[in-house]
Amino acid sequence: MKLDNFLHDHPTTPRSKDEKQAVINRLKRIEGQVRGIQKMVEEDRYCVDILVQLSAINAALKKVGFSVTERHIKHCVSDAIKSGEGNETIEELMEVMKQFSK
Amino acid sequence: MKLDNFLHDHPTTPRSKDEKQAVINRLKRIEGQVRGIQKMVEEDRYCVDILVQLSAINAALKKVGFSVTERHIKHCVSDAIKSGEGNETIEELMEVMKQFSK
Amino acid sequence: MKLDNFLHDHPTTPRSKDEKQAVINRLKRIEGQVRGIQKMVEEDRYCVDILVQLSAINAALKKVGFSVTERHIKHCVSDAIKSGEGNETIEELMEVMKQFSK
Amino acid sequence: MKLDNFLHDHPTTPRSKDEKQAVINRLKRIEGQVRGIQKMVEEDRYCVDILVQLSAINAALKKVGFSVTERHIKHCVSDAIKSGEGNETIEELMEVMKQFSK
Repeated sequence: MKLDNFLHDHPTTPRSKDEKQAVINRLKRIEGQVRGIQKMVEEDRYCVDILVQLSAINAALKKVGFSVTERHIKHCVSDAIKSGEGNETIEELMEVMKQFSK
Repeated sequence: MKLDNFLHDHPTTPRSKDEKQAVINRLKRIEGQVRGIQKMVEEDRYCVDILVQLSAINAALKKVGFSVTERHIKHCVSDAIKSGEGNETIEELMEVMKQFSK
Repeated sequence: MKLDNFLHDHPTTPRSKDEKQAVINRLKRIEGQVRGIQKMVEEDRYCVDILVQLSAINAALKKVGFSVTERHIKHCVSDAIKSGEGNETIEELMEVMKQFSK
Repeated sequence: MKLDNFLHDHPTTPRSKDEKQAVINRLKRIEGQVRGIQKMVEEDRYCVDILVQLSAINAALKKVGFSVTERHIKHCVSDAIKSGEGNETIEELMEVMKQFSK
């Protein structure tokens, strides 16, 4: 399965306002961290210091990814399984997990 | 070795204006990608679509990390090795590589 | 959730003889690759050559992991979801995926 | 740079008997872990239990990889840098680190 065509345009259960806000808040923090590294480069800060900050962003992005994945399984994947159409959704999930773990 | 205290505050050879700009340009693109995902969440886009974009950011951040690492080895680590003080610098490098690969 | 106590001792649907054999065959190949690296070390082969082989084993192990995960979702997780008890199983799955992606 | 042709056949400083034995001992332990998982599959053990063991092997392989990398930098890469021929060796190192981090 290729990930060039998704099974849906939206989650099968829409995200609530609070759910959206929680993810957006995390992404705003990550955006700030990325800007912080730009400043570090401008100030010509030590390479290892920059690498530690890049690692922190990677860890934060992974956390967002896992939380999006968990919600996806609890809603979209679960809904598909309950209606007897789990296989395609599970294969799509595996594909994106492989890509995400690279 | 713990990474709470770096061996230097700056690279042993300062980054040129062009070198700085190249890294900052990549980080600006990543910043834009992070903002793009915020928009996707607001529009309640499909989880797998969001995960693919998160994977793309992770890959872009890794590329920045590898380019910072390569420059670090070509300058700071090489300078330390040439002056017979490589070991501590290499151990610091290994520590940050372990952190980065998590 | 800590992974010190699993929800089950066995898959909810037992693995068939063929399923078992397919995983075991892959693991036997990996075992052979690990022995191959021991030989490379004995022959004092070049570090980068050894690292490429270690990467190949890592990739092969990940493939086994993804195939075990896919089967787990298609059976154990799906069964739990169908009987309305998905949440705990999904949280266990997320926990092991986080560990696996380190 | 492609990794189809290595810069050397052997480390620039041969591994001592003790160095070899230390790596081989770790690999023998990993080999045993891989056999252990084969047994788990034969006994049809729970998927998550197997995944935790696969993660442990991955972590152990990474440790071997980092120790081989550290020795490589402390000898082969350092020797090349000292004789003014660091660049090619550093690029080879970066290539294998990228592959290893996948």
